[in-house]
Amino acid sequence: MRMTDLIAKKRDGQVLSTEEIYYMIAGYTDGSIPDYQMSAMCMAILLKGMNEQETLDLTMAMTYSGEVLDLSPIEGIKADKHSTGGVGDKTSLVLCPMVAACGLKIAKMSGRGLGHTGGTIDKLESFPGFSTALSEKEFFENVNRHGIALIGQTANLVPADKKLYALRDVTGTVPSIPLIVSSIMSKKLASGADVIVLDVKCGDGSFMKTPGQALELAENLTKIGRRAGRRCAAVITDMDQPLGFAVGNALEVKEAIAVLKGEQEGDLLDLCLALGSCMLTEAGFAGSHAEAKETLKMSIRDGRALNKLAEMVRAQGGDDRAVYQPELLPKAAIQVEVPAPKSGRVGRIHAEAVGLVSMMLGGGRATKEDVIDPAVGVVLRKKLGDAVAEGESLAQVHANDPEKAKEAVERLQDCFELTSGPVVRGPLIHQILGTGL
Amino acid sequence: MRMTDLIAKKRDGQVLSTEEIYYMIAGYTDGSIPDYQMSAMCMAILLKGMNEQETLDLTMAMTYSGEVLDLSPIEGIKADKHSTGGVGDKTSLVLCPMVAACGLKIAKMSGRGLGHTGGTIDKLESFPGFSTALSEKEFFENVNRHGIALIGQTANLVPADKKLYALRDVTGTVPSIPLIVSSIMSKKLASGADVIVLDVKCGDGSFMKTPGQALELAENLTKIGRRAGRRCAAVITDMDQPLGFAVGNALEVKEAIAVLKGEQEGDLLDLCLALGSCMLTEAGFAGSHAEAKETLKMSIRDGRALNKLAEMVRAQGGDDRAVYQPELLPKAAIQVEVPAPKSGRVGRIHAEAVGLVSMMLGGGRATKEDVIDPAVGVVLRKKLGDAVAEGESLAQVHANDPEKAKEAVERLQDCFELTSGPVVRGPLIHQILGTGL
Repeated sequence: MRMTDLIAKKRDGQVLSTEEIYYMIAGYTDGSIPDYQMSAMCMAILLKGMNEQETLDLTMAMTYSGEVLDLSPIEGIKADKHSTGGVGDKTSLVLCPMVAACGLKIAKMSGRGLGHTGGTIDKLESFPGFSTALSEKEFFENVNRHGIALIGQTANLVPADKKLYALRDVTGTVPSIPLIVSSIMSKKLASGADVIVLDVKCGDGSFMKTPGQALELAENLTKIGRRAGRRCAAVITDMDQPLGFAVGNALEVKEAIAVLKGEQEGDLLDLCLALGSCMLTEAGFAGSHAEAKETLKMSIRDGRALNKLAEMVRAQGGDDRAVYQPELLPKAAIQVEVPAPKSGRVGRIHAEAVGLVSMMLGGGRATKEDVIDPAVGVVLRKKLGDAVAEGESLAQVHANDPEKAKEAVERLQDCFELTSGPVVRGPLIHQILGTGL
Repeated sequence: MRMTDLIAKKRDGQVLSTEEIYYMIAGYTDGSIPDYQMSAMCMAILLKGMNEQETLDLTMAMTYSGEVLDLSPIEGIKADKHSTGGVGDKTSLVLCPMVAACGLKIAKMSGRGLGHTGGTIDKLESFPGFSTALSEKEFFENVNRHGIALIGQTANLVPADKKLYALRDVTGTVPSIPLIVSSIMSKKLASGADVIVLDVKCGDGSFMKTPGQALELAENLTKIGRRAGRRCAAVITDMDQPLGFAVGNALEVKEAIAVLKGEQEGDLLDLCLALGSCMLTEAGFAGSHAEAKETLKMSIRDGRALNKLAEMVRAQGGDDRAVYQPELLPKAAIQVEVPAPKSGRVGRIHAEAVGLVSMMLGGGRATKEDVIDPAVGVVLRKKLGDAVAEGESLAQVHANDPEKAKEAVERLQDCFELTSGPVVRGPLIHQILGTGL
């Protein structure tokens, strides 16, 4: 078998066989197939597509390119969640304890990643002492005992995706459904959960610009997950503004705690209830989404969800007092408000730009080596459609550097578009793909 | 400017600007744009195409990626020819002396190349002492004095194409009209001739399988050549069997001499007359193809064409006695015939496979380091449509190794398909694009 022939086959719109796809991924992973062949193949896949079987084969070949986690030492059904990413997305911090409080096991691997804020792990490290460096044995024990544990991605999880994603990023081959599906699902499959729930974002700041494109991606993701033997659901959500109010690590933890305490309603809670309902119904813990939602709300009302967060933080070496006294979390030295330059209604918030302000303040990583400042970030005071008077605050900046604080205020003013006309907003949740609806 | 953005632009079917194309070729040539980006771009170009302006820009950017030959020290009009390649293609050996004998200057750069036989230079090196290692000054002087000279390609001629062709070869991105056109025409433009005539092959053994595809390529080649300010014509020819009878270096020289002596008619002469007529009419040396053909035939009848070959060989240090006494050319130790396994008509000759036999005998290069044996090769006894009796010879093997000779006989038997039915043949020359028709 020669890679050149496989490229020509895909270029001519033909279907690659299972054997050919495994050959290609194994060769690319071990370095015998060079980047320049793989990038030509990616472009051919992007422009000519892959059918369902090819996408499944690609996903499985990537899944087995490295270590695959066997979660069978954990009793019961294990659930996992993936989001295609968004500014201010702290859903995992709310969702995982809430679902675990309802009895569904959460054994989750999380990345650190680059971006506007850290990953879920970076956020949880706002709790002094919290560690994700558990051995596999400790990880399993923690989930068996507490129903929840979070660890960092093992070094050898889907090595094919590590190489392939870096290549696609610099060769214009990111926006391809089979390539996105195999990248996301290989990592989820290798992480071993029985139930996988996907949060597929659409809108300006995400890959999928329209709900239609997001639906296509969601359908492909769930189809491949099911064909790989997992229970799978997806929620298509709008990303026309940051989710919730906080953007920044400790700030997001505080907001998550407020939601778990029942102190904050709105988009963040709604999304967590939708994702959690998918998890519980797919796992068979609820007969319908309505029933699941009640169960989840109850876990907030009676304090079990918040207690579950504290239990996890404690079990992983963290100081859980901050769960009940969030003022113990890292706090920035400077808090300044961002005054509205005129009166009006918030017609648009440039989510991406808000994220970049948080990163500039020190809340995210531009390179792997960057150290995150957990305390800094932005808290929105106004969201889409809100009325605002001239001079009233649009957002609050949390900074540890006066120069950066000043720059943040200026840049945040540009992130808000104020309008005198009506503001039309689409729904937060466009569609749910799953059972029990 | 970022290469990733240019790839995405072409991927999405947009048109690249002149500046973007020059940026891309300059960056690829100097190594700042890596292979893996260029191969993704090539695949996007192959699948999304390029318009005429983009193809011209690409051709010019490649032309000026290295040294460009200025032929102005040579008086008069200079002509060059390019063939898209074929088994047994010795047209340059006949065409160049014939056209030079008619007064049109031939200042030709030729490659050695890999393949079934050597390039034109390897073939001419069958003349003992013949050298193409002329300085630029000697090259110009030779053309001014003798009307013809052949040199090897300078090291820095179109370096972009050297890199790009090697990359396309292993990334499934060869069969793209804008990429083929820019590869061929950049080398011809950098070589400096005023008149460029292209022999575009179609059929089984070539890229362009049908006359329609070959026509599309030929139209694009001539259009770009003309937009670059050269006079340009193309002949679309069939490659359903080896051209002429000989495949092998000295064997092809002998056949060329026979044609120049007027001793051999048929496909090789016909093609040389068609290409030569294009050259003379484009150069304004003849008002019509009919007139040009008469002029060319006359140069054979009165011996001027053959004498011109001898003059060139002598001027470049070769022993020109072999032009008049071809038995002085290198001769293989073994000559064996290939008996027909049954009676019938030759329904098909697998040209590619005949070429591979010649290469196996030592007549071509598989790698750059291989040394060519000028004496070995194959001479066809029968061509398409010829009747043959069982045991009669289909071809003659010229070898210097008894084992290889034996293998050649067996493999050549498989190269001929004998049929009892009628043999339908298309024309040798499908179409001519040019003036004076």
